[in-house]
Amino acid sequence: MKSYRKELWFDIRRRREFVNITAEVRDCLRESGVREGLLLVNAMHITASVFINDDESGLHHDYEKFLERVAPHAPIDQYRHNDTGEDNADAHIKRQLMGREVVVAITDGALDFGPWEQIFYGEFDGNRRKRVLVKIIGE
Amino acid sequence: MKSYRKELWFDIRRRREFVNITAEVRDCLRESGVREGLLLVNAMHITASVFINDDESGLHHDYEKFLERVAPHAPIDQYRHNDTGEDNADAHIKRQLMGREVVVAITDGALDFGPWEQIFYGEFDGNRRKRVLVKIIGE
Amino acid sequence: MKSYRKELWFDIRRRREFVNITAEVRDCLRESGVREGLLLVNAMHITASVFINDDESGLHHDYEKFLERVAPHAPIDQYRHNDTGEDNADAHIKRQLMGREVVVAITDGALDFGPWEQIFYGEFDGNRRKRVLVKIIGE
Repeated sequence: MKSYRKELWFDIRRRREFVNITAEVRDCLRESGVREGLLLVNAMHITASVFINDDESGLHHDYEKFLERVAPHAPIDQYRHNDTGEDNADAHIKRQLMGREVVVAITDGALDFGPWEQIFYGEFDGNRRKRVLVKIIGE
Repeated sequence: MKSYRKELWFDIRRRREFVNITAEVRDCLRESGVREGLLLVNAMHITASVFINDDESGLHHDYEKFLERVAPHAPIDQYRHNDTGEDNADAHIKRQLMGREVVVAITDGALDFGPWEQIFYGEFDGNRRKRVLVKIIGE
Repeated sequence: MKSYRKELWFDIRRRREFVNITAEVRDCLRESGVREGLLLVNAMHITASVFINDDESGLHHDYEKFLERVAPHAPIDQYRHNDTGEDNADAHIKRQLMGREVVVAITDGALDFGPWEQIFYGEFDGNRRKRVLVKIIGE
């Protein structure tokens, strides 16, 4: 069994943003040499997500609007977590809704994807350096 | 390490529906010959889900009602994604809430499930042929 | 390839609660002897979650409040599932939003975690004995 590990670093200059990381994940898979197996991509921070969906800016706007409607950032004093001095309680909720991680099948050395699947990093509390973990196991 | 791959195809004749795919996934596991390992089941389309819950029609009605309340299909012009000519922005949101994939433990050649766990395909934008991927790794 | 399996049992004396299970999962990993691989932790019951987030009581209050706002327990007759004699339809919805499972990378014999990641059992329909499955594969 082979295993491979890499961290991808992000420094998003806004509070919230979606970044397509599919190419970086494909580079990891190529480096790993794994032909058959499973690939895990997870946010290492608890106010960020990794998810798979469409690379379409209108949809990303709709996600942003949906998440702000169900778990708005402000007023920050509506959240008890923010009594600790943080202002990111909403980001912890948004990340749960969008998910921490994805697991992707590896077949014949490629991400075994449907036609529109793309992997995104979802930042919900930016302006700090944060990481995504790529872990691959297989043969 | 053994690996196994199969696509399950669906052609749901309504916009939204939940389909119990546990028996098909068990057939895959049997075909794979894997006794210990992990099994991934994921939607290959980004307006569909794979999730684990109860096979109870009342609950499925409640999921449908909940999802339509928090991310309604209409009016379709409330979503910027639909400016592209699509009418399925709500389906992309619903799929995120219900999830893309499940990972299931394989023990002694069986799905290692609690008493009520069943695997479902969740269609949120039907009337087209769509696929689910089953990938198994183990020994 | 090594594989390892353990059930963790819970008997939560309230309807809803979050329990930090990171130490128990670390014990499982140590017992498994796996140094490189993947670790799956999933609720075996469909009204409970396993998720990764912060061990901060204010945040847990915010999750509780958020989940009750979007999928309230009462009145129980708002849910068709509860016509079966159950009163836990809301718990099935809450569990979908928080997730069934997490998959964690194992590197050098440790959970490959970011600085604040902790694993939680999320109970949404307590007052009965319920289980979490820990499954580890690797070398």
